[in-house]
Amino acid sequence: MRAVTVGLGDRSYPILIGSGLLRRVGTECARRHEGRKCVIVSDSNVAPLYASRVIQSLKSAKFDPELITVKAGEKAKSLKVLQACYDRLAELRLERKSFIVALGGGVVGDLAGFLAATYMRGVPFVQVPTTLLAQVDSSVGGKVGINLDAGKNLVGAFYQPGFVLCDLSALETLPDREFRAGLGEVIKYGIIYDAPLFAQLERDMPKLLKRNTPALASVVARCCEIKSEVVGQDETESGLRAILNFGHTIGHAIEAAFGYGRFLHGEAVSIGSVAAAQLSQEILGLPENEARRITALFNAAGLPTTLKLTASQRAKVIHTMTLDKKASAGQVKFVLARRIGQVEFGQKAPADLVNATIKNLQPSPQIG
Amino acid sequence: MRAVTVGLGDRSYPILIGSGLLRRVGTECARRHEGRKCVIVSDSNVAPLYASRVIQSLKSAKFDPELITVKAGEKAKSLKVLQACYDRLAELRLERKSFIVALGGGVVGDLAGFLAATYMRGVPFVQVPTTLLAQVDSSVGGKVGINLDAGKNLVGAFYQPGFVLCDLSALETLPDREFRAGLGEVIKYGIIYDAPLFAQLERDMPKLLKRNTPALASVVARCCEIKSEVVGQDETESGLRAILNFGHTIGHAIEAAFGYGRFLHGEAVSIGSVAAAQLSQEILGLPENEARRITALFNAAGLPTTLKLTASQRAKVIHTMTLDKKASAGQVKFVLARRIGQVEFGQKAPADLVNATIKNLQPSPQIG
Repeated sequence: MRAVTVGLGDRSYPILIGSGLLRRVGTECARRHEGRKCVIVSDSNVAPLYASRVIQSLKSAKFDPELITVKAGEKAKSLKVLQACYDRLAELRLERKSFIVALGGGVVGDLAGFLAATYMRGVPFVQVPTTLLAQVDSSVGGKVGINLDAGKNLVGAFYQPGFVLCDLSALETLPDREFRAGLGEVIKYGIIYDAPLFAQLERDMPKLLKRNTPALASVVARCCEIKSEVVGQDETESGLRAILNFGHTIGHAIEAAFGYGRFLHGEAVSIGSVAAAQLSQEILGLPENEARRITALFNAAGLPTTLKLTASQRAKVIHTMTLDKKASAGQVKFVLARRIGQVEFGQKAPADLVNATIKNLQPSPQIG
Repeated sequence: MRAVTVGLGDRSYPILIGSGLLRRVGTECARRHEGRKCVIVSDSNVAPLYASRVIQSLKSAKFDPELITVKAGEKAKSLKVLQACYDRLAELRLERKSFIVALGGGVVGDLAGFLAATYMRGVPFVQVPTTLLAQVDSSVGGKVGINLDAGKNLVGAFYQPGFVLCDLSALETLPDREFRAGLGEVIKYGIIYDAPLFAQLERDMPKLLKRNTPALASVVARCCEIKSEVVGQDETESGLRAILNFGHTIGHAIEAAFGYGRFLHGEAVSIGSVAAAQLSQEILGLPENEARRITALFNAAGLPTTLKLTASQRAKVIHTMTLDKKASAGQVKFVLARRIGQVEFGQKAPADLVNATIKNLQPSPQIG
């Protein structure tokens, strides 16, 4: 088992990474939580696979677990589902010392985390991410929240878990498309922070796609380290943390404009990253061959790097961007790359360049 | 103008207290906020009286204010109203540097504060309390939130305002019943922290009931000082802050069991405080004459100190208490007084004693 620490003073916490860790949820909770009662929040995909294992582990450690299962999918991150969860927590008589275990992907982690952040003004919670995306990204760093019709994650909080437990074995049951979407965020870490990681991904992509455990362990741990370093320096995104949003400004807008569900988050980030790399060439002089390597690596991971858009869809994507939380006085800010491994945040881009870049996502016409 | 500082490190903020301060909202915001856009959240009672004054003040200071008016009453603290407010903030294109101004009583402050705490994971906000209750209590200390059917303030956050502005002139239009309810919390501060304040209230109650400005200024400032001292020592209610809940455990249960709206919060606290004083006599040896002075002072303020309850209503009050956020493993904890000005939190009370105390709230039969 590997352990990475997220350094946030008296709210520091460990990320535990390894195989077969679900059975250790109970003992890890026992080291940290005094309340007996706890509630596992999971979804209709994950609960049938793993909830009984986690319940058993918690019971063995003398906890009194209850299970809330929400319908799988982004729609669970809504006020409607949140309300149903609140009501259920009240019914279950959750108390301030009780805790919540998020068992699932990013949607479950964000929903359960926001629930924990706001129920009784905050109860402890634990992240047990079961998707690659959640393990390397959403479970670490304390961003929790839900969506509004007007935009993704428009409602939320910064609220740190007591610990994060990444069971690599849980990735075995992950559908291929979701696994590849997780690789989208993995590639992002290479671009924003770590050229050697990027090169490692170029080499190891075939192994990773076969879900080779040692290759995965190394990559998941490195991504968690990077995220921890960034979050430890800037918990509430007043500066550096923004670099984690490489590819996300356009990516989020694509997700929102097409309606959540059409693209997985990692797929939208893949397309958004390719667009950001193009903008980076124009604005920060990212070398053309590095922009090509970025596109090639996303392609190697089996992720989309082009997008067919009608003129009205393109207008919608651009409109949605101005609603982005990172926008200020209507001005959209981008994270752009100077080199692979080196990015700058708060970058402005002329509207016509953004427009052209998004137009440019159109797939090249096939010849012959 | 008086100023009291709430000392919370880099989140410290001032409470400004004086007459005619609504006209200074704009200049005070200009000293602290860089965003131009702001949203005033108010209710259908307060907005017609004071919103235009605040809007004018903000416009003069070059801000771009918008107004959201919710229907007056406790029901505004619901997920339904919250959702409507979120949607409106998105429509208004609120940004992270924009800020929210809570203009109204405790309900508006709690709702607007929770909105600010969670919209885009937190935007700045300002409290402009227009009721006595909000000026001495709910606007100070960062507790924000909404109600569930299962209980009051079951959803919320700790989120501090940028500053609090208490305009004593706004109290002139406050209905008598609401003004008296505010005095309920004022009396509480005497009981929990300050015997000389309690004695001052016994002397000055007639002046206060006439809303004499110098008498009010002195009392509001002292209450804010006490709350600031307590909150400064224990922001998130892990210890000392609990003393602010004197009279609230039973008070909240009464409010909830009768349905929000039957009693004003200060009225329920008055009844709850009389009950807590009775428990205090039994458990901490509060002298009988001090318990009598407590009841007499609430009566002098024109507040209810008795409660007619059927057996089933009594059972409901007791059941509701076990749902209280301060309950642990189903055990209700009380704040009890040893003397006026000196209380202890985390006090357990035998269930039959609590039951008898609540039964004892029954008004004495009239003779003759």
